[in-house]
Amino acid sequence: MNIVIIGGAGVIGRKVAQALIARGHIDGHDIRSLVLADVATPVAMSGCRSIQVDISDPTSVADALPEGTDLIYHLAAVVSSHAEADFDAGMAVNLTGTLNVLQRARELGTCPRVVYASSAAVYGGDAPDPTHDLTYLNPQTSYGTQKVIGELLLNDYSRRGFVDGRGFRLPTISVRPGLPNRAASSFMSSILREPLNGKEAICPVDVGFLHYYLSPRLCAQNLVMAAEINAHDLGMDRNMIMPGKMWSIQQLIDAMTAVAGPEPAKLIRFEPQPEVEQIVRGWRYDFTSTKGLALGLMTDSSFQDNIRYYLEDDQP
Amino acid sequence: MNIVIIGGAGVIGRKVAQALIARGHIDGHDIRSLVLADVATPVAMSGCRSIQVDISDPTSVADALPEGTDLIYHLAAVVSSHAEADFDAGMAVNLTGTLNVLQRARELGTCPRVVYASSAAVYGGDAPDPTHDLTYLNPQTSYGTQKVIGELLLNDYSRRGFVDGRGFRLPTISVRPGLPNRAASSFMSSILREPLNGKEAICPVDVGFLHYYLSPRLCAQNLVMAAEINAHDLGMDRNMIMPGKMWSIQQLIDAMTAVAGPEPAKLIRFEPQPEVEQIVRGWRYDFTSTKGLALGLMTDSSFQDNIRYYLEDDQP
Repeated sequence: MNIVIIGGAGVIGRKVAQALIARGHIDGHDIRSLVLADVATPVAMSGCRSIQVDISDPTSVADALPEGTDLIYHLAAVVSSHAEADFDAGMAVNLTGTLNVLQRARELGTCPRVVYASSAAVYGGDAPDPTHDLTYLNPQTSYGTQKVIGELLLNDYSRRGFVDGRGFRLPTISVRPGLPNRAASSFMSSILREPLNGKEAICPVDVGFLHYYLSPRLCAQNLVMAAEINAHDLGMDRNMIMPGKMWSIQQLIDAMTAVAGPEPAKLIRFEPQPEVEQIVRGWRYDFTSTKGLALGLMTDSSFQDNIRYYLEDDQP
Repeated sequence: MNIVIIGGAGVIGRKVAQALIARGHIDGHDIRSLVLADVATPVAMSGCRSIQVDISDPTSVADALPEGTDLIYHLAAVVSSHAEADFDAGMAVNLTGTLNVLQRARELGTCPRVVYASSAAVYGGDAPDPTHDLTYLNPQTSYGTQKVIGELLLNDYSRRGFVDGRGFRLPTISVRPGLPNRAASSFMSSILREPLNGKEAICPVDVGFLHYYLSPRLCAQNLVMAAEINAHDLGMDRNMIMPGKMWSIQQLIDAMTAVAGPEPAKLIRFEPQPEVEQIVRGWRYDFTSTKGLALGLMTDSSFQDNIRYYLEDDQP
């Protein structure tokens, strides 16, 4: 089994790699090679090779996905606020880039497995609440639009036998380690991560703001498990919600206080940021992940888990 | 008002042009120019100019949509059976071509109106019946997939103010004049058109086969009306079902007999065609067109209308 993780420099990409290395095999086959690929060469990790790839360039994608590639994780994206601010950058990576990955996978001629990271941002607009796997997709961001297009292509390339795809609408991942990024959801980790490290953080929404979360640890475990799902169990739609849990900002803060004491919460400042709020208020948060749960994907039992996983796995 | 109809050589494109010429104005503005554009230069029509365009080529699209273009009809497509047989041709025209049209419209910088022909083939797969505007889109053909992608792009380009788009999931158009084409639905006109002209025709499905239909006359009138819909009335989704009616093959034949006597029906031969049936059995047929009807779009009152319109408008 030769595996390439596109988006391998990201938090989830690296955790998927670690989980794969710890496991050593996928679907009964030993892992023979594991490559982390990203727009900037990923920091070296034991057991992997790191390479640079520009997915908006078909030649670069062909180099990153050589013959013999059996399993491709496509986790790379220009994230929500960035794709909203720079439409052409989002289109080049999220649409053209995804198409390039699928075309290259098709060229391989071996129907490789493709695990695709979509996003809960595919939902929104005129579709009714609450949200389930088969809720109409009416995204109200360019990022969400481009993610749906990737899902549709994944379905059609799978239906035609070009690839064996499976796509997952990821909840917001929290507590993300590292630095804030240009996702509009970045604050949903930073208001916990920074205070847990003794630093101030800004929360741009009120404590009642509801959202749908999953820990990085279980997201990575789910993505490993995803590669082993039998294609016949996926039905006519290769895409689904990855199970998460709905919490309010107050519940996030209470969970942090329960695990780490009262001091971190004092470091959160509430300051409105209209451009972030405009995006995140358009997102759905009340999800039912019927298909993912039926296929065995996991979710955190309480947000205290998310806090503990951060402290165990990621705190610097 | 300068108007370009891409797909102007097609049945609907030509009928839209005729309806526009008869009207002389759109949304209170006189029609100053009307251009029929297609992959082969459309047959000349009085009151229009005909040009050649290859929408898979951005340069050709820029030539076809010069500065000052106010209203674009994008009706061009590689149709269902063709896109299923030749994946790359479908992608080049239906996906890349639509993207090229939208990008050129964006480049104009004047937020031109774009009326986009989508298809009821966007529905299918794991989505529940019956079907309404906000039913989950899980197409089971490459054509349907590419049409949904066009809808999503139309929405996002509209949301960003690049174009003022409105998209319509067309029912199967019957009775289509002219020759059979490579749409899997082609027989749904030919089993009526050929017998009405004293010729034999083959029906590849049984008389109980249900499907959703609209006459070419009302489709064209709806597409003219579509250009005048106020953008604010479209909500957060620019796409909708164009209203049609559900009929069985038997009802089509009975309507033909009621209008034209018993002889034509005797010219229909029933012969299974598995490759056609595989596509059309995956299509939905039980539709509710709430949004289109609320916006004033029309549908035929009975299939006898469809037969009469063919005899009045199109019979050679």
